Amino acid sequence: MGTELLLGQITDTNSAWIGARLAETGIDSLWQTKVGDNHARIVDALRTALRRSDAVIITGGLGPTQDDITREALAEVMGVELRRDEEVLERIRKMFAGRGRSMPESNARQADVPEGATVIGQRRGTAPGLICPVGEGKVAYAVPGVPHEMAEMLERAVLPDLRSRGGVTDVIRSRVIRTWGEAESAIAERLADHMRALDEAGPGAPTIAFQASGIEGIKVRLTVKAEPAKADAVLADEEAAVREVLGDVVFGVDEESMEHAVGELLKERGFCLGLAESVTGGLVGSRLTEVPGSSDWFQGSIVSYDSEVKFDLLGVPRGPVVNEATAEAMARGARRLLGADVALGVTGVAGPAEQDGRPVGTVCFGVDIQGEVTSSTVRFPGEREMVRQFAAISLLDALRRRLLGAPVSGR
Amino acid sequence: MGTELLLGQITDTNSAWIGARLAETGIDSLWQTKVGDNHARIVDALRTALRRSDAVIITGGLGPTQDDITREALAEVMGVELRRDEEVLERIRKMFAGRGRSMPESNARQADVPEGATVIGQRRGTAPGLICPVGEGKVAYAVPGVPHEMAEMLERAVLPDLRSRGGVTDVIRSRVIRTWGEAESAIAERLADHMRALDEAGPGAPTIAFQASGIEGIKVRLTVKAEPAKADAVLADEEAAVREVLGDVVFGVDEESMEHAVGELLKERGFCLGLAESVTGGLVGSRLTEVPGSSDWFQGSIVSYDSEVKFDLLGVPRGPVVNEATAEAMARGARRLLGADVALGVTGVAGPAEQDGRPVGTVCFGVDIQGEVTSSTVRFPGEREMVRQFAAISLLDALRRRLLGAPVSGR
Repeated sequence: MGTELLLGQITDTNSAWIGARLAETGIDSLWQTKVGDNHARIVDALRTALRRSDAVIITGGLGPTQDDITREALAEVMGVELRRDEEVLERIRKMFAGRGRSMPESNARQADVPEGATVIGQRRGTAPGLICPVGEGKVAYAVPGVPHEMAEMLERAVLPDLRSRGGVTDVIRSRVIRTWGEAESAIAERLADHMRALDEAGPGAPTIAFQASGIEGIKVRLTVKAEPAKADAVLADEEAAVREVLGDVVFGVDEESMEHAVGELLKERGFCLGLAESVTGGLVGSRLTEVPGSSDWFQGSIVSYDSEVKFDLLGVPRGPVVNEATAEAMARGARRLLGADVALGVTGVAGPAEQDGRPVGTVCFGVDIQGEVTSSTVRFPGEREMVRQFAAISLLDALRRRLLGAPVSGR
Repeated sequence: MGTELLLGQITDTNSAWIGARLAETGIDSLWQTKVGDNHARIVDALRTALRRSDAVIITGGLGPTQDDITREALAEVMGVELRRDEEVLERIRKMFAGRGRSMPESNARQADVPEGATVIGQRRGTAPGLICPVGEGKVAYAVPGVPHEMAEMLERAVLPDLRSRGGVTDVIRSRVIRTWGEAESAIAERLADHMRALDEAGPGAPTIAFQASGIEGIKVRLTVKAEPAKADAVLADEEAAVREVLGDVVFGVDEESMEHAVGELLKERGFCLGLAESVTGGLVGSRLTEVPGSSDWFQGSIVSYDSEVKFDLLGVPRGPVVNEATAEAMARGARRLLGADVALGVTGVAGPAEQDGRPVGTVCFGVDIQGEVTSSTVRFPGEREMVRQFAAISLLDALRRRLLGAPVSGR
């Protein structure tokens, strides 16, 4: 909901996420409506939605300001009054106190609950969610519009409640196999025979779909509809079959990112890693340290954006800096300075202008594993930020392949 | 429209774009609905929409396949039959001929037009648009779902028709003022008097709305409805008025990020910047180097994730490392190693576990401007990635405030 969505000032990612989760949970989702921050129109939208559907999920409008009016609209639709919930209020006060501040008076409104509604206790933000019974066995759920607060409450309270009300038993589960280094069409061709066999196996067999996710590679999505106990076993078998076909272009599953894959390999081998970054400006170190526990295998990074830092600190020979010799020297310098077993160097041209006569998108990678140094060069498509992102994941993939003993692919 | 949208398989960008263009064109846009490829539900959605509004824009469902049923639904709502339009048919045939192919028979359906509707000739794809009068002076527009076909028809036919039917001359323009360092409720309280004055000024006065964008701070959106010539002047005055009230918590306008603000200040003062990052792992350098031209004022970063790197390379005295003395020593070390005028140090606990007896979320900042070093400590809420993101923008804000000569705020 919200005027900002209607005006296109913010793009709505919540409804696609909720739609996907409802589908996976086995609940039909037939309508989505956006409406501005206007009491009469919100009430009209809720009444229309409840006429057509058994359940309605509302996002947003639970904040502390005057244009947050979901609570009032729900109370009107339910035909009840709002009542201030002392327990909710106390939780809001405590949240502010935990940050060393006192609660502004306006936040007290967030503790107003329509009579007869059940509160979904707030864990991340100050707004609680609401489960509102609305006659004829129907229900309206209200959750905050902030995506991570919305998602947490949906998973914790809304989806379980919906499944139990709807008597849903089959679930739709899916698993995403993540790859780097080959185009979607090449992966599709390699899996063509296998997919034909699944088609012929008929209903109950898993299905495969491809999803190009740009800077994070090609995703292969396996989906199955079955009883919860059976679904996971089918997916595990199918994952094994797809991995067998695709081999080492697969770096992970579901939320396993490239940095997770690299971290696991480093841990297994007892290596610690250092970086020398130029074109990526710190992005590779930033991604690696998103992984909890990365301090076990990550030493640090020398972000040598200015050439003088490459020469003075990393010991790169003076001269042009977008070439494999520089990437190798950067990796060697990082290994020495950071006291690492393994080090990576990356230098390139993100744009907008070319550099050292090398066109935008040119990136050179160096990998130093205990003194054995290799390098490679790739030219990426796209603009500045895309080049940087491609460079970061490709650098990590180059290390992954060296650690696996696999050949380093161009892209 | 479309089942794929409801399932979250594709994200809807059309409705945000249309919403923004309607707003800019001065047409109130009050509702948006998504519905699956089902005749009865589409008809219901159209009837509901036409009851509430004077005009409805429908996207998608004009293709050649069986699930493209917008034409049939419109004919039912209008109470008329579909008639094949020979001129449209001929244009589709020619499009295929132009690509050296003959038209598949299924595409003939795209030439079916509800009686009484006006055709918007297709220029980019094979689907024409439709302008459908629907009683009581109301109107429904149908355009293709493919974004660039939709946009072209909207600009060429739909928006001009809407403006002329509505007798619209005003446009709606908005501007976003970006802040860091205060909660939404605190900013709302500071602007309360000013907003009351705007309310009392009545129609024609700008309006103010707040938007919490999490890791990027609180946005204050100014919106005005006026003749095109006047709108920009009103916004400029209003921006000045809000900046006057909010002072130095404002770091930018519209797309200006914190790193842009810092880059501009460094350029103005002729300073170049170095970093020593621990808890952020390279994130600050990565954000700064997203800015094109950052090589003019950014030297690099020493990402000293491991404590030994802090001691050996940056010269931090051995001991616990989550404290202001360490942040200061890191900044000094970075300034020296990177040959910078200005340097920042950041150390803290992102979690999952506490460190040196300091709880998760504790972050210390050091700022060294030509040898004058200051420091501060903040405790952030949230989990690992949120702490890192908050730390990055807060560190840059601390520098921005020092460069402006303003006090550094806690958050």
